[in-house]
Amino acid sequence: MAFTFQINPDVQFNHESDLLEKAEANRPKLHKTLVKPTKVMINREDTTETSYKAIQVTQTVKELGESSFGKDDQITLDFGNHYVGHFAVSIQSVGSPMDAPLFLRIRFAEVLDELTRSAEAYNGWLSKSWMQEEFIHLDKLPARLELPRRYSCRYVEIKVIDTSRKWRVQFSDPTFVAQSSAEMAHLPATQIKDAQLNKIYQISVRTLHECMQEVFEDGPKRDRRLWLGDLHLAALSDYATFDQVTIVKRCLYLFGGLTSQDGRVPATVFTNGDPIPDDTFLFDYSIFFVSTLFDYYQHTKDKVMLHDLYRIAKQQIDLGLQYVDQEGCLKLPSKWPVFVDWSDEFDKTTCAQAILIYGLRQFIQLAEAVGEQDILSYQKQLHLLVHFSTQQLFDSKLGLFTSGAQKEVNLASQVWMVLAGVLARPASKALMVQAVKSLFPIRGIVTPYMYHFIVAALFKADHLDTATGLLKTYWGKMVTLGADTFWEAFDPNDLNYSPYGNALLDSYCHAWSCTPAFLITKYCL
Amino acid sequence: MAFTFQINPDVQFNHESDLLEKAEANRPKLHKTLVKPTKVMINREDTTETSYKAIQVTQTVKELGESSFGKDDQITLDFGNHYVGHFAVSIQSVGSPMDAPLFLRIRFAEVLDELTRSAEAYNGWLSKSWMQEEFIHLDKLPARLELPRRYSCRYVEIKVIDTSRKWRVQFSDPTFVAQSSAEMAHLPATQIKDAQLNKIYQISVRTLHECMQEVFEDGPKRDRRLWLGDLHLAALSDYATFDQVTIVKRCLYLFGGLTSQDGRVPATVFTNGDPIPDDTFLFDYSIFFVSTLFDYYQHTKDKVMLHDLYRIAKQQIDLGLQYVDQEGCLKLPSKWPVFVDWSDEFDKTTCAQAILIYGLRQFIQLAEAVGEQDILSYQKQLHLLVHFSTQQLFDSKLGLFTSGAQKEVNLASQVWMVLAGVLARPASKALMVQAVKSLFPIRGIVTPYMYHFIVAALFKADHLDTATGLLKTYWGKMVTLGADTFWEAFDPNDLNYSPYGNALLDSYCHAWSCTPAFLITKYCL
Repeated sequence: MAFTFQINPDVQFNHESDLLEKAEANRPKLHKTLVKPTKVMINREDTTETSYKAIQVTQTVKELGESSFGKDDQITLDFGNHYVGHFAVSIQSVGSPMDAPLFLRIRFAEVLDELTRSAEAYNGWLSKSWMQEEFIHLDKLPARLELPRRYSCRYVEIKVIDTSRKWRVQFSDPTFVAQSSAEMAHLPATQIKDAQLNKIYQISVRTLHECMQEVFEDGPKRDRRLWLGDLHLAALSDYATFDQVTIVKRCLYLFGGLTSQDGRVPATVFTNGDPIPDDTFLFDYSIFFVSTLFDYYQHTKDKVMLHDLYRIAKQQIDLGLQYVDQEGCLKLPSKWPVFVDWSDEFDKTTCAQAILIYGLRQFIQLAEAVGEQDILSYQKQLHLLVHFSTQQLFDSKLGLFTSGAQKEVNLASQVWMVLAGVLARPASKALMVQAVKSLFPIRGIVTPYMYHFIVAALFKADHLDTATGLLKTYWGKMVTLGADTFWEAFDPNDLNYSPYGNALLDSYCHAWSCTPAFLITKYCL
Repeated sequence: MAFTFQINPDVQFNHESDLLEKAEANRPKLHKTLVKPTKVMINREDTTETSYKAIQVTQTVKELGESSFGKDDQITLDFGNHYVGHFAVSIQSVGSPMDAPLFLRIRFAEVLDELTRSAEAYNGWLSKSWMQEEFIHLDKLPARLELPRRYSCRYVEIKVIDTSRKWRVQFSDPTFVAQSSAEMAHLPATQIKDAQLNKIYQISVRTLHECMQEVFEDGPKRDRRLWLGDLHLAALSDYATFDQVTIVKRCLYLFGGLTSQDGRVPATVFTNGDPIPDDTFLFDYSIFFVSTLFDYYQHTKDKVMLHDLYRIAKQQIDLGLQYVDQEGCLKLPSKWPVFVDWSDEFDKTTCAQAILIYGLRQFIQLAEAVGEQDILSYQKQLHLLVHFSTQQLFDSKLGLFTSGAQKEVNLASQVWMVLAGVLARPASKALMVQAVKSLFPIRGIVTPYMYHFIVAALFKADHLDTATGLLKTYWGKMVTLGADTFWEAFDPNDLNYSPYGNALLDSYCHAWSCTPAFLITKYCL
């Protein structure tokens, strides 16, 4: 997930210190690894979009140390994989004494394409402050330049803006201290015979690894914080791979400890310093607090955690049910919109209905686990919601669910109704036959996040081949395009798509894109 | 002085540790003062060269703290005078939680005009690294931003490149910790009745004060180091004002301890860290080592220092005399050029001849003071040089000295011949009558450095009114143009003149420009 544009500065938040203390007690340890570039690309003239790749010369790191650089020269260090952490390089001057400061621009890129885009020309609506670009003066050489900020990258580009006419610079021992709270040693040995699936699995694991910092960050490049939508999926992938549940506990306690005074779980929490809830609320994300707690409890049977957070889960359901009318139709207020996907091309009301059903079913199981007295009323609400969905939203002539006043038929609605278990298993299978027939090839879905739910629905509805095929064509296409980690947004029909109007600030390592590790483990092994 | 473009990487240097230890022992203490802006100029749209001044709003510092700023807003803090030191400001966010880093550009300017010039468009030949411009990301707010580098400025401009759409920033408590080794308490009470001369005196003292750091820096903005030409004049002004001789001792010992293996004093020494001699050699600057030692000894009668450095002074004279032919004509090799002024519009050979005579005269007095055995041979050389000058270089028909094979008549030659005392006093006076008649108004002299010598020659040749008048029109014009300190380069006939092809990197506080403090004290009180 990432930035959505809500401003609600008047919202007051609870800060439940007992829950926040448990969040702090579950802060995972960061493991650090020193990595070095695998190769260096030299570019002795200014970069332009068209010529960037054409005039590169490739060197080893050893050869780099023997070269010298002057005004407008630039080098690109390729660390060979995606890393999150801190960069350092040794710099010395050669020639006459250093009669001026050294002035450098250093950029960090997850994919090489970012280096072909000009920061000055950035016209998207995300803050320019997210650009991983620093301008640095060094008054004394030799020096070990150790940048204090954390970056997310495979490539580090160093441009010499100027030395002086009397001296040049040499760069040596470039290092990256990579960090993650995921421990590779925890990863189970996995035999995936299908080479393409194996590759997708490995990249998914890498994506998850990179996003596992002191919380599950949505993207370690940007926004570097905890979103509930990402947490929901990253936790599932974690259980299937590293199985480090401490970080999940920490994240759930953070959300639980920071609800708004009307009880809603915020969509995102800032964790750079003391945790701060954002004034952004998304209906589906609030419901996914229930789902994440449900998945966690299913995986761990941790009763303490369930008892600590059950109350918060119940609030989300109770608040959601307030907007269900007597017929069983969910009508959300504008202050609590549903996200589903970055695409705005489809109606999302039926998705919201299904997501409430999905969460309510999970909640009822949690309620049973804690011995809730009043389960019956929730079961009645569930029945009402399902009844409305099958009677009013399902178009039996089309064999598909419709959405909104215009009775729009879209893929996301079918997917979420399957995941919500609104239809019996054979009917779900038939629904997805019809969905594939009518609504494939997929159009207007732009995130691996929503693609995850499509694939999950296909698996759940017993379309194993179609599910595996979609997983291979969608995530596999990113692999073909050179992904080291999976991207925040990807529309195979529009490779230039960005949710932000300009791809320079897109995140190319995003938690919600790592779910093939979960899907493959659950369905393909 | 500043950068001249020589590259002599093969030159080997002596490092005389006894002299360098004495230099270190005389490192002056820096005195620090906290200063605050006197006013704040707000500009809520992007700066352009034409609109910059037009759309400013002026606030107090208190009002600043109550305003908030977003993308592309900028503020300019006016500290009311020129300062050298370190900047800090407190920054906090207002609005929704800080969901992205803060990205700022901070520029430091000695004169407001610098802020109207674009760094991207800089096309001069000095290193862009001298631009006092930083790009800063802050990941957490509130924060006290304390910039680690030293700046030279009156104005500090802060541009908000971006926050995000959800929050803005507030700036409060901007401070500048100003530093100098000059102590205002040392300044003698001076009564200068002429208001214009008084203003020029005060600005000269300020200029000197700002350049007095751990050495006399040429310009605290740029190059921030010790040049012999600046030392020569700054020391004279120091004796007339603060009279802090420790810093002069330190500078002389630094040059004395770092001669080239052939004995020449380098033109400049880097003092940012362990002292490093630059591989730049200027004949006049080497000779001015003798002059500076002479002036110091005249002022202090410090025999220890004289004995320590006499040998180095003698080397400069001996090396210079090697290039004097049997007729008494100095013919310099290309590796030891003469500087005189940044202007290249006039022939400098007669200046070089005069400067050698000037230095040789001073050297002979030093030789007498140390009891040199071989004074006679120096006196003979002096006689020969003077004889050649009066017989071959003086055009009795014109009443002026000529220079070079083309027998060019230029002002600098007359000035240096007067300062060298080649003519008797009445003849010097007549020479300057002729010079003023033929060569005024002055053209093609572009530095306060060379203007100093013109004014000094006029005073020496008993043209008190003309000297005072020139001092008032030249330095006074800078005052009229708003100078807080006197500038590195100034051509009253071409206000856009820069020695570097672009005025953005010109120094507007330059040691060699502070001599009115000396001239006024010596001749006008």
